[in-house]
Amino acid sequence: MPEPKTFHMSPEEFRRHGHVVIDWIADYQQRVETFPVLSQAKPGEIRALLPAEPPQQGEPFDAILGDVAKLFPGITHWQSPNFFAYFPANASAPAILGDLVSSGLGVQGMLWATSPACTEVETHILDWLAGMLGLPEKFLSTSAGGGVIQDTASTASLTAVLAARERATNFASNQSGCDGKLVGYTSTQAHSSIEKAIMIAGLGRGNLRLISVDENFAMKPDELAQRIEEDKRAGLIPFFVCATTGTTSSTAMDPLDAIGTICQQYGLWFHVDAAMSGTAALCPEFRWIQNGLAYADSYCFDPHKWMFTNFDCDAFYVADRKTLIQTLSVLPEYLKNQATESGAVFDYRDWHIQLGRRFRALKLWFVIRHYGIEGLQHHVREHVRLAHKLTGWIRIDPRFELAAPVPLNLVCFRHRGGDVVNQALMDRLNRSGDLYLTHTKLDGKFTLRFCVGQTNTTERHVERAWKRILEETLVVERGTA
Amino acid sequence: MPEPKTFHMSPEEFRRHGHVVIDWIADYQQRVETFPVLSQAKPGEIRALLPAEPPQQGEPFDAILGDVAKLFPGITHWQSPNFFAYFPANASAPAILGDLVSSGLGVQGMLWATSPACTEVETHILDWLAGMLGLPEKFLSTSAGGGVIQDTASTASLTAVLAARERATNFASNQSGCDGKLVGYTSTQAHSSIEKAIMIAGLGRGNLRLISVDENFAMKPDELAQRIEEDKRAGLIPFFVCATTGTTSSTAMDPLDAIGTICQQYGLWFHVDAAMSGTAALCPEFRWIQNGLAYADSYCFDPHKWMFTNFDCDAFYVADRKTLIQTLSVLPEYLKNQATESGAVFDYRDWHIQLGRRFRALKLWFVIRHYGIEGLQHHVREHVRLAHKLTGWIRIDPRFELAAPVPLNLVCFRHRGGDVVNQALMDRLNRSGDLYLTHTKLDGKFTLRFCVGQTNTTERHVERAWKRILEETLVVERGTA
Repeated sequence: MPEPKTFHMSPEEFRRHGHVVIDWIADYQQRVETFPVLSQAKPGEIRALLPAEPPQQGEPFDAILGDVAKLFPGITHWQSPNFFAYFPANASAPAILGDLVSSGLGVQGMLWATSPACTEVETHILDWLAGMLGLPEKFLSTSAGGGVIQDTASTASLTAVLAARERATNFASNQSGCDGKLVGYTSTQAHSSIEKAIMIAGLGRGNLRLISVDENFAMKPDELAQRIEEDKRAGLIPFFVCATTGTTSSTAMDPLDAIGTICQQYGLWFHVDAAMSGTAALCPEFRWIQNGLAYADSYCFDPHKWMFTNFDCDAFYVADRKTLIQTLSVLPEYLKNQATESGAVFDYRDWHIQLGRRFRALKLWFVIRHYGIEGLQHHVREHVRLAHKLTGWIRIDPRFELAAPVPLNLVCFRHRGGDVVNQALMDRLNRSGDLYLTHTKLDGKFTLRFCVGQTNTTERHVERAWKRILEETLVVERGTA
Repeated sequence: MPEPKTFHMSPEEFRRHGHVVIDWIADYQQRVETFPVLSQAKPGEIRALLPAEPPQQGEPFDAILGDVAKLFPGITHWQSPNFFAYFPANASAPAILGDLVSSGLGVQGMLWATSPACTEVETHILDWLAGMLGLPEKFLSTSAGGGVIQDTASTASLTAVLAARERATNFASNQSGCDGKLVGYTSTQAHSSIEKAIMIAGLGRGNLRLISVDENFAMKPDELAQRIEEDKRAGLIPFFVCATTGTTSSTAMDPLDAIGTICQQYGLWFHVDAAMSGTAALCPEFRWIQNGLAYADSYCFDPHKWMFTNFDCDAFYVADRKTLIQTLSVLPEYLKNQATESGAVFDYRDWHIQLGRRFRALKLWFVIRHYGIEGLQHHVREHVRLAHKLTGWIRIDPRFELAAPVPLNLVCFRHRGGDVVNQALMDRLNRSGDLYLTHTKLDGKFTLRFCVGQTNTTERHVERAWKRILEETLVVERGTA
């Protein structure tokens, strides 16, 4: 039979073009520091570069890859070592290659049966990771709990809210909807995804209590207990508390021990969101951030932030997988299979919102094996050290003040000249392309956030950034004096 | 300053290892047909191969990559041309390379401002795609609607439910939760994700009406209208209808025109889920499947199924992006920026559940440009032709019967010997490793599903599969006679 007509790229062509793409990325890695970190594109500018119509005939691969460079004015370089904005979304070479293997295999692991290795490697690596971080044993798959990779901490928090709702109301087997009585709690400093999760779950924005924080921006447990009591007296049903280990604004650490005790007392689902900071627990000296985690029903952190595993990769753990599965399982005929019916396997589709899933554990496996525990610890420690070094420089400069404690690698600070000066300073720095940092508000004041966490950030990048901050400070001070 | 100690892979090492990984994938592509399609692993078998503890020191890359081969007994080869199970989750060479560029750039496009190209390329390519499929103009970003890449159709459907809930109740600005009065509608043949979405949204399993289907497994619009009337009379609030263009069991086509008219009459949000079949509309001769789509408020299909774009990539369109954004937007201080405040840009974080997002439009861009419209059409047509060829063979074999119409590329059929025979036949075929197909139930009977849609499936694979079906049929008939 003659080979049929095909428009597919042959394996040999893939090999050739693939080598070019790898070289392209290696070149990018070598040059990334030379690009302005923050894109200066205007709305619509990038789109205007693209042809109005898709091509009728296929185009040569070189032309396609070549056009990626045209997008560069619209790229903000998250992989630049001069990226200090938000929290990072780190790639690393072993992660990229692990993810590439995953793309090549193209496995879809919605059920154990649809590719057992996809599920079993994930379960195993998440158990490894729990051990590496010193998480409570109840989160291990060998206990009644277990870990699963979610896309983001936002989705993980939503999943926690849903499981909590289930435990409080047997919702999945319930025929009617929510009745507006369930109440959740988090701090005023919690991530916006908690509010989003409460809304998605149909519980009503008004049913999330934002507990105020102390001078370190950590949740006040006394107020939490008091609000729970009030709500109970009002006939409402407290069901869920989310504490944050390292808030987005300032990496504030909610007191897990005190909050957990309250959750236990009232029988509330206790979720801990450590999206950024969780990685620090790789180092024994930072493991105090998890004190009280033994009370938690669920926990998440993002290897795609600070653990050099490219997006998307959130590690989500539950202590009671049965409740989680009951929350999310719907089993139509076309997904039935013997392994599922045996009860001897995990079907991860029942652990999250989506049905389909790619083999994301590979990139995590590659990262842990490439770096080893030692390598991961080294880079986390180094980032923390550099953040503290910057903190020292800020502390001795009378024009600046620290706006929050620096437990790990995020430095919140501000010029004493007020919001206008700080906004101007940030804008000038970001426009310069030399570095990228973002802001928040703490105590009602415009505050600069400087996060030392990008994979390739080293001492010279932080030093240069501080030098640039000082230079632009002089300019701004002159301009507003 | 001396270069600091590092455990990172240097760009030069990445280049070297990257070439090896590309070659590894090319080799895999060349050999994929020789592997048993369905893994025969036993629960725990793959996990038992992995070391109990993570490595303290990093390991050489060759050792890491070498261990992937050890997982092969636990891999089901979704990229094998002999994969006819479920719906496919297709990779293709340009998609893998586009995704690789995305991993290398490591851009996180939660906001327009965090990498304008990530948002603008996505908006533009989804407009291209709308044109390529002949979608209604209201779904274009240049109208009041627009497209966004979601991970899966499950999440897209959930997003549609949430937007519908918003339109019906102004939920986001509402302080209280759902009151159990909202009622949604879909057919008995709809995907399980619709039920999951209704539950996640807090609306109650009992508040989803499963409308029965006609002899072609398509929703009965008369019954839909009747149930809506009944619910209204009972004081409930009908708010959402999901129709399916190509159901999972049998690619049944719900009558969008009739259903859409009813939705319009009662003011209900009309979502159309075309997860698998939507790709067919690339070919004008199959565009009839979209008749009536003009009534829809939202629409989704999965390029990661049949459009050769590797997982995850669902294209989700809404006619009224304002409602969608209102549903999902929460704006904390640390995400505020001038572009967002100007209103001149899309911030895609407000279009889905997650906050963070990778640059998935790149792989779609690469696929469309590599194949051109012509190439995509060719392969879709070829798959449909082969499914119809198989249909012809089944039709003339008196031992078999077709279980449903074959509008596109899914053939549902069964041996006339009953459930036991069909289950045995499927199990023997799947155990042989020569092909992989799955089952459903139609009219209460065990039915084999044979989907011709894998990227590399050609005539000889379908012919050989049919030959193997006939061979095993003889064996099963002998065994059960």
